[in-house]
Amino acid sequence: MQDNLLLFSNSHTHGMRMFEHARAALSEFLADHHTVYFAPYAGSDYDGYTNTIKTALEPFGVTVIGLHTVSNLQQTLQDAEVLFVGGGNSFRLLKTLEQLEMLAPVRARVTSGELRYMGSSAGTNMSCPTMRTTNDMPIVQPESFNAFNLIPFQINPHYQDPLSNSTHMGETREDRIREFLEENDVPVLGLREGSWLRKRGSQLHLDGLADARLFRRGTEPQEYKPGTDLSWLLTEKATFDQKA
Amino acid sequence: MQDNLLLFSNSHTHGMRMFEHARAALSEFLADHHTVYFAPYAGSDYDGYTNTIKTALEPFGVTVIGLHTVSNLQQTLQDAEVLFVGGGNSFRLLKTLEQLEMLAPVRARVTSGELRYMGSSAGTNMSCPTMRTTNDMPIVQPESFNAFNLIPFQINPHYQDPLSNSTHMGETREDRIREFLEENDVPVLGLREGSWLRKRGSQLHLDGLADARLFRRGTEPQEYKPGTDLSWLLTEKATFDQKA
Repeated sequence: MQDNLLLFSNSHTHGMRMFEHARAALSEFLADHHTVYFAPYAGSDYDGYTNTIKTALEPFGVTVIGLHTVSNLQQTLQDAEVLFVGGGNSFRLLKTLEQLEMLAPVRARVTSGELRYMGSSAGTNMSCPTMRTTNDMPIVQPESFNAFNLIPFQINPHYQDPLSNSTHMGETREDRIREFLEENDVPVLGLREGSWLRKRGSQLHLDGLADARLFRRGTEPQEYKPGTDLSWLLTEKATFDQKA
Repeated sequence: MQDNLLLFSNSHTHGMRMFEHARAALSEFLADHHTVYFAPYAGSDYDGYTNTIKTALEPFGVTVIGLHTVSNLQQTLQDAEVLFVGGGNSFRLLKTLEQLEMLAPVRARVTSGELRYMGSSAGTNMSCPTMRTTNDMPIVQPESFNAFNLIPFQINPHYQDPLSNSTHMGETREDRIREFLEENDVPVLGLREGSWLRKRGSQLHLDGLADARLFRRGTEPQEYKPGTDLSWLLTEKATFDQKA
């Protein structure tokens, strides 16, 4: 079986209801599955967050169950067919995934094709080898920055272009990603709001409402349009902790 | 002897040369000291960064020496009278401070009043108990988020107000600090660009070109004007890893 990933930059696009920008992609991804297990750990109010996701996803004909409510988490992870990891704070999310010992079992079942993985924002960041390209504040400390490692490159969700005429002297998003590339030889895909990646086995496509910007060490950033086949990114070399 | 800290939100303020916004504060802080040891570890080009700081600080009548150029770092840390920790990436900075075993000796000499500490941006973040309120991307992984712990609260440098009319759906700076307060019961001072804190023993003052915004769990954020005595912040309770 091939693995199936759907990785959103964000769930809410300006002026639209949650996932309204991605209805067709969601229907295709959910296919004939009827239950979505939701990991609310990037948020602080698990019940409230799960209810929001129910409202957004149940019109697609699925039942949404918060993973925090199941009695046997490890057994549920072995039986589940669709997992959605929601956004919020990536550090809080990863620390909780570590404490719940979710990383290895989820990775095994996603890569073997038994469990579909859908992520948004922090949940998309978790699909990468590490959380090193998150935008979030390190409010708590996970043991390691290593994440689900479902793809061999890094994504920066909510990618933002520099604001013209800004007087702010802090780093732009591009500055930050360039700093990442000084320390790591790993491609980073800046996924603008409204866009997503869809992976089916060895096939990877960009889709959605916005172009994406790819950063690699030693080359100028490149822009890709929705619909672009990015499968070649799945075979790119990635080396962490190697200074430029 | 009392300790002496000068903690800048940033070194470059829009439209000004480095530290031009803070000439009087710098002169007062440097007093009759003639050598500033500079820690360039938040950057990637240590020599280039040190030269930039030389150009900015030597008009104040001091010699600037990059700590990366000294032959015996631990001895230098015992003899130095002024340390400046510069900005850049906070994760890279803290990982390097750990590897160089700088945290404990610097803290001991600063708190005893023998070593003056000046920080900017990431260097200001390092003066806090932890780096948990940085804006930076976690491009490398330090062993711990614990920092110099020279003050008992957290600072968010380059504090930015929400942009009006923004269509971006990512978290605002205030959202991120609220997430921090969900996990930690520790005050966070949002230090806007152009402002700084000056600590002399038990006295702490805000100064510079902008108001600062203080966030505490369970209360609305409060604004403070340059010149405000914030010494009471030095005796506030701070508890990390305690959910709201």
